[in-house]
Amino acid sequence: MWQQVEVQLPAMHRGFHLITGQVEAALSKMSPVSIGLLHVQLLHTSASLTINENADPSVRRDMEKHFSHMVPEDLPYYEHIYEGSDDMPAHIKASMLGSSLTIPIRDRQLCLGIWQGIYLGEHRDHGGARRIVLTLQGE
Amino acid sequence: MWQQVEVQLPAMHRGFHLITGQVEAALSKMSPVSIGLLHVQLLHTSASLTINENADPSVRRDMEKHFSHMVPEDLPYYEHIYEGSDDMPAHIKASMLGSSLTIPIRDRQLCLGIWQGIYLGEHRDHGGARRIVLTLQGE
Amino acid sequence: MWQQVEVQLPAMHRGFHLITGQVEAALSKMSPVSIGLLHVQLLHTSASLTINENADPSVRRDMEKHFSHMVPEDLPYYEHIYEGSDDMPAHIKASMLGSSLTIPIRDRQLCLGIWQGIYLGEHRDHGGARRIVLTLQGE
Repeated sequence: MWQQVEVQLPAMHRGFHLITGQVEAALSKMSPVSIGLLHVQLLHTSASLTINENADPSVRRDMEKHFSHMVPEDLPYYEHIYEGSDDMPAHIKASMLGSSLTIPIRDRQLCLGIWQGIYLGEHRDHGGARRIVLTLQGE
Repeated sequence: MWQQVEVQLPAMHRGFHLITGQVEAALSKMSPVSIGLLHVQLLHTSASLTINENADPSVRRDMEKHFSHMVPEDLPYYEHIYEGSDDMPAHIKASMLGSSLTIPIRDRQLCLGIWQGIYLGEHRDHGGARRIVLTLQGE
Repeated sequence: MWQQVEVQLPAMHRGFHLITGQVEAALSKMSPVSIGLLHVQLLHTSASLTINENADPSVRRDMEKHFSHMVPEDLPYYEHIYEGSDDMPAHIKASMLGSSLTIPIRDRQLCLGIWQGIYLGEHRDHGGARRIVLTLQGE
């Protein structure tokens, strides 16, 4: 049994944001599976999906600071500069972090560690709404 | 219904290369599915697969420049040096970017954003032909 | 046919460790599939899973050195510091590398390149035992 749904996330400011609740809300509207896999695809190239610590907002702030340190704006060798200083770094961060996740389902729920949550990494200053496609399969 | 096929990509120079067309060509030879997932596994440890911007070649050049900046050759602490200066950085980049992708299928097509394409990251100076295994499942 | 099992890995020192054997041992206890996908989810946010070179231990040592170079401890802008100097860098590395893998199955075996192995990246100094969830589906 395959199910697929597209979800639009509201615009978020630059940085990392917990979206576990939005993913769980979409999952709860699909026919439940006891064992399976949920795949989440972000349809953009200047934002990312990753799993990290779901409790302390300082983790998300430190991630934003350090990814922006590793991938600075306005490096002299960037050629792709006509969409703004934040654009090329956003593409690089998107590939460092990835644009999709595959998450096990156990007992109808996301099977993640107690400290794990789903992050949207918004790497543009004004990225706007972002769309994700959820594909669920299981039994 | 499971389908699996191996594809050999021609040798490419060091840098990032769009291979969306090759993946779509292989997909078109498999029995179509309306909803499903396509998994792509690269069988090498000094190249990578990632999804990024499919339009402007300067994005791919800037990615090559900045990944090579983050992971330089000939660092004094590298021990794994006997396969050439480009080898250890290639391994590190391969893990930063990843060696597989899982892509949703919707209406028999790759379900990607309009700006998303599939990149092969070739991290060796002379990496030679690279092999990928495509595994398709769906209904 | 879906199968899911949880495996506890013994505590490992900080660095990258080959766990291909442990994953293959768990796979061998599941009902075999000729074609399929094995998903491996690490249930932690300060360790990671990645695929890289399975032969020379110096690759794993160089990866540890360079990831710790790219993500140093005690940066002045880290706010999340109360769990130790190694904690925030561990979270960042976990997202750079990823917390899950999806690996094709071909002829009942992991379908990986001859030089590919599965690494656990242990990014804490004393991370303790780590748990992974394996989800297998195929035919």
